[in-house]
Amino acid sequence: MKRREFLKTATTGVTAAAAMTIAAPAIAQSDPVIKWRCVSSFPKSLDVLYGCAEVMAKSVAEATDNKFQIQSFAAGEVVPALQAFDAASNNTVEMAHSAAYYYVGKNPAFAFGTHVPFGLNTRQQNSWMYQGEGKTLLDPFFQKYSIFALPGGNTGAQMGGWFRKEINTIEDLKGLKFRISGLGGNILAKLGAVPQQVGGGDIYPSLERGTIDGAEFNGPYDDEKLGLYKVAPFYYYPGWWDGTSLLHFFINLDQWKKLPKHYQAALTAAAALSNVDCMARYDAVNPPALRRLLGLGVKLRPFPTEVIDASYKTATALYDEVSATNADFKTFYESMRRFQADSAPWYQASEYSYDTVALRQIRR
Amino acid sequence: MKRREFLKTATTGVTAAAAMTIAAPAIAQSDPVIKWRCVSSFPKSLDVLYGCAEVMAKSVAEATDNKFQIQSFAAGEVVPALQAFDAASNNTVEMAHSAAYYYVGKNPAFAFGTHVPFGLNTRQQNSWMYQGEGKTLLDPFFQKYSIFALPGGNTGAQMGGWFRKEINTIEDLKGLKFRISGLGGNILAKLGAVPQQVGGGDIYPSLERGTIDGAEFNGPYDDEKLGLYKVAPFYYYPGWWDGTSLLHFFINLDQWKKLPKHYQAALTAAAALSNVDCMARYDAVNPPALRRLLGLGVKLRPFPTEVIDASYKTATALYDEVSATNADFKTFYESMRRFQADSAPWYQASEYSYDTVALRQIRR
Repeated sequence: MKRREFLKTATTGVTAAAAMTIAAPAIAQSDPVIKWRCVSSFPKSLDVLYGCAEVMAKSVAEATDNKFQIQSFAAGEVVPALQAFDAASNNTVEMAHSAAYYYVGKNPAFAFGTHVPFGLNTRQQNSWMYQGEGKTLLDPFFQKYSIFALPGGNTGAQMGGWFRKEINTIEDLKGLKFRISGLGGNILAKLGAVPQQVGGGDIYPSLERGTIDGAEFNGPYDDEKLGLYKVAPFYYYPGWWDGTSLLHFFINLDQWKKLPKHYQAALTAAAALSNVDCMARYDAVNPPALRRLLGLGVKLRPFPTEVIDASYKTATALYDEVSATNADFKTFYESMRRFQADSAPWYQASEYSYDTVALRQIRR
Repeated sequence: MKRREFLKTATTGVTAAAAMTIAAPAIAQSDPVIKWRCVSSFPKSLDVLYGCAEVMAKSVAEATDNKFQIQSFAAGEVVPALQAFDAASNNTVEMAHSAAYYYVGKNPAFAFGTHVPFGLNTRQQNSWMYQGEGKTLLDPFFQKYSIFALPGGNTGAQMGGWFRKEINTIEDLKGLKFRISGLGGNILAKLGAVPQQVGGGDIYPSLERGTIDGAEFNGPYDDEKLGLYKVAPFYYYPGWWDGTSLLHFFINLDQWKKLPKHYQAALTAAAALSNVDCMARYDAVNPPALRRLLGLGVKLRPFPTEVIDASYKTATALYDEVSATNADFKTFYESMRRFQADSAPWYQASEYSYDTVALRQIRR
């Protein structure tokens, strides 16, 4: 529109030099050069997780003819890994790439942005966040922190982690020093384990020295890099505390509002591309990594039903407990549980049933 | 760059009027107004499927400040549903939204763009197409038809369709007139059924009159609209011939190449947004639709293992048969099977294992 006014003005007798001074800022405003910083909670060595920010930034730059440039920074380059959300919230940087559940210390309700133990699976979490109540409920929640959030990446259901000894009964959890964070750690603590907070780079030496007895991290591709199989050969599944793990781009709300509408649209679509691309990458790199690990003697084990059932019961009790004093948590939890219960018959008849059939034939 | 040259020129003494005539086309070229038509294979009544084209077009228009406008047309408005691919291929329109496996008549290898019976599931198909050999193999295949393709939507694993009588053994398939198209129809034919091609609107009257004995369509949300439950109350699962159903945007290759790079980027990201959004929508609308159908007395039934196993065996024989004379099919089939076999242990330990755990707890 402004360009048309420019052309019109220029051809109706105003001196061209005057038209120039009008035109230049008009052009600058419609496609301004904007440079943002996006701080990731992940190091470059976790290339799929860190890569989400780069995939997003590349798409935004390309779609805006390099006018909107977002530079990605790995964990620690600008702020520490777990301060990424705060950095965007307080406008230290314009945006962050992180997992909402890293911030349960602010409010346990953050967990629902990513996953709560025994909560939605990957497809359900996407549905709840793109088309269900998840978006409706979480948008105003994040706004309280001056954040506009877009889903942007997923690991899928993770593995249950590495153990030095087999876990056969609930008794085997008692006193077990296990590296795990978030609500999963709270649940294991109620079952007698001792959750430990250990940074990624310290997991291997801690396991080797026996400071911890086990550790969960992610899936085969990322776990392989840490080398945990050398000191803790029992690899359990599933990671019921990470049945999905949806990541987000957390954007400072004022910065978001100041963006031209078409830059907002480019960023929204780029985040979705990053979301589907991240899951596609993990599903391409995890299978060969698991095969390599099994080739190195890793012992794959399902968690015993007794452990799963006790964990579920404990999780439900914990959610009721938190819901009693936290209105956000209660609202999100009830919505999530409703969605999950509603979804179950459909999911079981379709995806789960098809997977059952396909996996059975492949095993034969 | 051109804008900067413009400003520089204008301030270095060339008459401003002359600068104008240089500047205007330079602006027009970098952000040209482009109007495309996208023909869908779906009617507007299938709002989620048809909606994929609209979600894509809205994102593209918004990201380009309404410079790149794509108008969607429902099946039949410009060309019939199953001529969508051809219309883009021969440049009647610039692009189409359709399913590759509708075009197995040209070459059975088209099926791998969408799904082959007992093939990849939804996450695996995305992974194969975004990050695996699927993209590498299918890009040059589609190029032979002057097409550049982008994934854009999915139904997830579909249901196995509606039957007037129960299917308990392979014998129950003999002579069964079943509405189904594609390779699934070929497989059922080898097992004694009589596949029927019936348009969406004719399924109900055909079932009511007894011209056909059963029909598959999609999932609960779309199936409900056809009202098939009134005349064929047995609703089987899973639809092993549609274990996933990836849709594509098929873009005329010359038109794609003529697009400015940033319009290509906006369209690429918009297609990904449409892809994730479509699956999210189906996962939001199918669960309540299935609940409504069950409330109306629909009888949900799993296909008997005997039928599944015989179908799988027949499918494998069919693929070997087609592979013997079709090099494209053979290449795609071998790549897909390798990916599926590789993926199975990872998928079983992670997503499938988590779903098993979560569904078990919800059922209790």
